[in-house]
Amino acid sequence: MLNRQIVLIARPHGIPQPHHFEMRTADAPAVGPGQILVENVLLSIDPAQRGYVNDESNYTPPVAIGQVMRGLAVGRVVASNHPGFHAGEHVYGWFGWQDYCACGAEAVLRRVQRRQASLPMAAGVLGINGLTAYIAFSELGAPKPGETVVVTAGAGAVGSLVGQLASLAGCRAIAIVGSEEKGRECVEKFSFAGYINYRRPWADALRHECPNGVDVLFDNVGGDLLDGILRCMNPCGRAIICGTVATTSWIPAPTGLRNEREILTRRLRVAGFVIFDHTSKFDAVAEKLAQLLAQGKLRAEVDIETDIERAPQALVDVYAGRNRGKKLICLRD
Amino acid sequence: MLNRQIVLIARPHGIPQPHHFEMRTADAPAVGPGQILVENVLLSIDPAQRGYVNDESNYTPPVAIGQVMRGLAVGRVVASNHPGFHAGEHVYGWFGWQDYCACGAEAVLRRVQRRQASLPMAAGVLGINGLTAYIAFSELGAPKPGETVVVTAGAGAVGSLVGQLASLAGCRAIAIVGSEEKGRECVEKFSFAGYINYRRPWADALRHECPNGVDVLFDNVGGDLLDGILRCMNPCGRAIICGTVATTSWIPAPTGLRNEREILTRRLRVAGFVIFDHTSKFDAVAEKLAQLLAQGKLRAEVDIETDIERAPQALVDVYAGRNRGKKLICLRD
Repeated sequence: MLNRQIVLIARPHGIPQPHHFEMRTADAPAVGPGQILVENVLLSIDPAQRGYVNDESNYTPPVAIGQVMRGLAVGRVVASNHPGFHAGEHVYGWFGWQDYCACGAEAVLRRVQRRQASLPMAAGVLGINGLTAYIAFSELGAPKPGETVVVTAGAGAVGSLVGQLASLAGCRAIAIVGSEEKGRECVEKFSFAGYINYRRPWADALRHECPNGVDVLFDNVGGDLLDGILRCMNPCGRAIICGTVATTSWIPAPTGLRNEREILTRRLRVAGFVIFDHTSKFDAVAEKLAQLLAQGKLRAEVDIETDIERAPQALVDVYAGRNRGKKLICLRD
Repeated sequence: MLNRQIVLIARPHGIPQPHHFEMRTADAPAVGPGQILVENVLLSIDPAQRGYVNDESNYTPPVAIGQVMRGLAVGRVVASNHPGFHAGEHVYGWFGWQDYCACGAEAVLRRVQRRQASLPMAAGVLGINGLTAYIAFSELGAPKPGETVVVTAGAGAVGSLVGQLASLAGCRAIAIVGSEEKGRECVEKFSFAGYINYRRPWADALRHECPNGVDVLFDNVGGDLLDGILRCMNPCGRAIICGTVATTSWIPAPTGLRNEREILTRRLRVAGFVIFDHTSKFDAVAEKLAQLLAQGKLRAEVDIETDIERAPQALVDVYAGRNRGKKLICLRD
């Protein structure tokens, strides 16, 4: 079996581009003792992958030059030397941008339950996107009915779910998006009460859409929007820092408005969130999300391509907001 | 009875100076229905008072021009039309920079228990300074034995108590101070394990004094120190934003390093703290602090002047770090 692999060949500063990668073809790896061999079905394209290749402050060391690109995927176990896994079952984990991955059980984030949802759902709403939306919003957002929730990147794979979870929690959710089309999608599909297009002057629009102030900010972008929204927050508001896509490079360290006085006088709670601190909750939360999906209370869009060589460009597209839902690369059925 | 009053006569931008105030003398006020008449004994000089006179983002509207300066004090009830208070008892509350204040019960923060400690202690360690140190450090700092706690303005009225509470909690406390003399005081009197003089190059010193990283930051200053310390924090560290004295004016909004990526990747919890959200806990916490004082486990310094006309200069001195402990103006026995 041949193994196509997308390999990092140059260290990007900022958003990785296609020229930082190349495709190599090798034999599929042998399965070592205690390992499983996974045949990838769906590669997950995630903004966090920028952080995996930049040599900047992050929660894991960067991918080395010459290594297969780190990434999550849904795959099928095709051989197993591990008593906990059997050939034919599906798993979700760190299998990288390649066709085949031989790995230990520690690479598996979740065993996919086919009864819960389709494989694309397992890679998105039941994967890190939905888990992030649910756990971060409920634990750090601590939403109360009637509160106003602002979600940046509101049409994104995480934001679109936060809008719906906020609505289910009795909150009024406002999306921040990069186009009118995405804004309408947020209102029509993702239960947002309104939207703001940040490519137009947004400060007055923010106050207009949030006449009672902002109680919870679910922030995927950082930058000027974060500065501006913090200044609209109500006393004892909660801000979840989940992503920083608005800043394209952290070297040299960028500057912005000082926020400590806003945090102090408004008594805000600003908390960073990384989903991989919460793996012990994944199965229980995925089950809850699957129930919401089955009940028609949660809607998740997917944007599927099929060419593994397009993976680097797909990541660029996600950063440019050109995806329409969770971006996946489907390699096989 | 004559009532000397320090009145705000001009709106400062930044730290208020003596020329923003003048002393006026009036008759002592009459006690209205339901009111008490308080004779001030000790005026409390607090960095927060800058915020009370600047027309900038804050948690209360600013003092109006022509009004008596807002401030906390310990005073004696000399007349009472309120069934809950009797002449002769001492109270701590919003009595302002003046000799006499006629006010309702809502101006009283705490009834002073003379058995607990001396009146200067009631105005400091059992007043907002100690209450802030105790409540913010325990609730937002969530200290665990063995952790490293960094305290900015470590020799100040709040910081010096946080150092001791951290030590009592089994933590290793490091003070950030503005002079070698204050640093030595922090180690010799306030149980800090070490100190850093921020008037010297401090980045390497911070790493040297905190070889295991920083778990809790109790920040009274903000600014560049905040930016630098956040970059030394351990995963899941807690930062308490309690004061912003390093920034002298917030108009126009000052800039600094963007911190959202540090907050995200380190999964920090950054929380603003204003003591007046916690009034229901004051009596119970003051009792705990009084016990620690009585047991010799807590030490609090006071720096007492006696001239009411010096109050504005005393506030300038506190901002310049020229006080040696909690700054009070004693008006009478």
